[in-house]
Amino acid sequence: MTTDNKFWGWLGHDRSSANGNMVWGQYAPKPFETRDIEIRVTHCGVCGSDLHHLRSGWRPADYPLCVGHEIVGLVVRVGSAVTDISLGDRVGVGAQSGACLNVAGDCPACAKGIEQYCPQHTITYDARFPDGSKANGGYADLWRGPAAFAFAIPDSIPSDWAASMLCGGITAFTPLLEHHAGPGKRVGVIGIGGLGHFAIIAAKALGCDEIVAISRSSSKRKDAFEMGATKFIATNEDKNWETSEGCKLDLILCTVSSADMPIEGYIGLLDLNGHFVQLGAPEDKTPPFSMFILLSRHRSMSGSLIGGRRQIRYMLDFFAERKIRPWVVNIPMRDANKAIQDFEKGAPRYRYVLVNEENLNWARWGC
Amino acid sequence: MTTDNKFWGWLGHDRSSANGNMVWGQYAPKPFETRDIEIRVTHCGVCGSDLHHLRSGWRPADYPLCVGHEIVGLVVRVGSAVTDISLGDRVGVGAQSGACLNVAGDCPACAKGIEQYCPQHTITYDARFPDGSKANGGYADLWRGPAAFAFAIPDSIPSDWAASMLCGGITAFTPLLEHHAGPGKRVGVIGIGGLGHFAIIAAKALGCDEIVAISRSSSKRKDAFEMGATKFIATNEDKNWETSEGCKLDLILCTVSSADMPIEGYIGLLDLNGHFVQLGAPEDKTPPFSMFILLSRHRSMSGSLIGGRRQIRYMLDFFAERKIRPWVVNIPMRDANKAIQDFEKGAPRYRYVLVNEENLNWARWGC
Repeated sequence: MTTDNKFWGWLGHDRSSANGNMVWGQYAPKPFETRDIEIRVTHCGVCGSDLHHLRSGWRPADYPLCVGHEIVGLVVRVGSAVTDISLGDRVGVGAQSGACLNVAGDCPACAKGIEQYCPQHTITYDARFPDGSKANGGYADLWRGPAAFAFAIPDSIPSDWAASMLCGGITAFTPLLEHHAGPGKRVGVIGIGGLGHFAIIAAKALGCDEIVAISRSSSKRKDAFEMGATKFIATNEDKNWETSEGCKLDLILCTVSSADMPIEGYIGLLDLNGHFVQLGAPEDKTPPFSMFILLSRHRSMSGSLIGGRRQIRYMLDFFAERKIRPWVVNIPMRDANKAIQDFEKGAPRYRYVLVNEENLNWARWGC
Repeated sequence: MTTDNKFWGWLGHDRSSANGNMVWGQYAPKPFETRDIEIRVTHCGVCGSDLHHLRSGWRPADYPLCVGHEIVGLVVRVGSAVTDISLGDRVGVGAQSGACLNVAGDCPACAKGIEQYCPQHTITYDARFPDGSKANGGYADLWRGPAAFAFAIPDSIPSDWAASMLCGGITAFTPLLEHHAGPGKRVGVIGIGGLGHFAIIAAKALGCDEIVAISRSSSKRKDAFEMGATKFIATNEDKNWETSEGCKLDLILCTVSSADMPIEGYIGLLDLNGHFVQLGAPEDKTPPFSMFILLSRHRSMSGSLIGGRRQIRYMLDFFAERKIRPWVVNIPMRDANKAIQDFEKGAPRYRYVLVNEENLNWARWGC
């Protein structure tokens, strides 16, 4: 193992890469700085964002790019200014790898510990660090970047579980905390995929009174109950769900989006003062909706992005203590293209994690 | 003056009434009950809702109807169970005239004092009381209804000012209070009409740091500054306002709506954690917008309806104490049809108040 400036990873060269046409190749990581670390990637979760970026769904991607932002591995290099991470540590990196950290004293987001909203944030791939160098992700043998966004993984959390928590887990957990999900609260989760399954298991761990899983079909009903759901709504099968289930929830986490989703029906499930949180980020705009659906019961809506560093550390401790088991499926890193093809078909039950083989030579020398 | 069961008022008989075709006529008020009062209407503000209802804009109206929900007058009849209102009192009635008041102990809205969200609320006109009788408004000589929704007007507030506060004022004031508008806060007001002008003068009275008036043209710029605005954006005239003014506000009260309003530009004016409140109620749906505009800066949005009884009482006291002067234009009740025609053209600067002449005989016997 060397930690030179030639990393290997699955590279997207154009939009077709999202169809399973990533190419294993070499790329230059950012210049190594004193506050950086390098991680030998052992695990990297597959997130919907990977697909969005590979296909330039949100904006034109900065090809070539190596995606993956649920990274877990072992530290193999530590910059001289890094004080809290040592060689050999098992750490994780999520969807963010940079922020101003309020060094200039003028960043309310970093000052509040919600660095994900820092105007100078760097996302983990398809982005540029302040020096102009490319940020690349974890479908790779190595990852290099600021130690400030690497988190120690509690011993009791297996690496594949931890990987899935670093974007999927925290994206679901943050709004649950923010909106005081817990005893006395009734939570709805729209979409039972990677994010949605985390929302259900986290809401259960937090002690919510009711957890309503909402999906188009009933195919995931059994799984949802096993995760902790107390009720299941299949919007394409259950009749009159908008009215029969209306006004019964305090909080909805919406993990799906499409231009034709029944957004008024969804919001109408909220009771007085209920709050609708859009997680993840759609390529489509919201469907038009009548503001009466907000006005009539004093409902509100917002968006939520991943979590800040303190929130991530808290989640890891909380999940470790509560023995939260995400539903992950391990797939060899060499099968990354098949993994994203299957992901796009909705196959994961419920999070894919790419696993680098013990001997990384295959990765170095082509697979 | 009699208080029999034959009231006179301006009646809308069909959608064309919104064009200035209301007809002065007789109608039966609700049956008088022990908790009711009757008011000799001296003043009634003209609200956009009146037009929405007259033209069946939100839903088919329950014609014939007498609109008007900014009612001030003198109490001429008091039910035997009414303890806090006396004959001759000057009182006002706003956009709500009934709610369950948590009598059965199962209404969170009434329990919290936000009776406007009571599922059993009765709006002041184009509605039915629980007994099935029609609720009618204040474009009339008399008003009859529950004393629970009549508010004593502080002596220092003239009746025309008070009328305009009972819907326009409270609708703007409630979300300012809810979102802690005051020193340190930067507030934007979209649309400088009846609601918007109240939002500006109330935000100023509450001590907000910045008050940004946002309108399509600059025609109301001078007025807005006089009301208390510290900045003015004319969205059809100022270039690049979305970017040059982006991320600078903590709270936006949006008093306008249309299917083509630049909603992403509006929301983009909000800084981190900023909140967008839709006031009043549109006939159109919201334009589609990208959830990124909420996600990127952790912004949120909600709707807000008028205010609860405690909020109304607090507003009246606050406005009295701070000597809040709304910009009202008095118009004789007999000219109600012309008033709503002019209202629809955007003529009010900034709230019309219909005034019944001292001698109400004209009203009783035709005008």
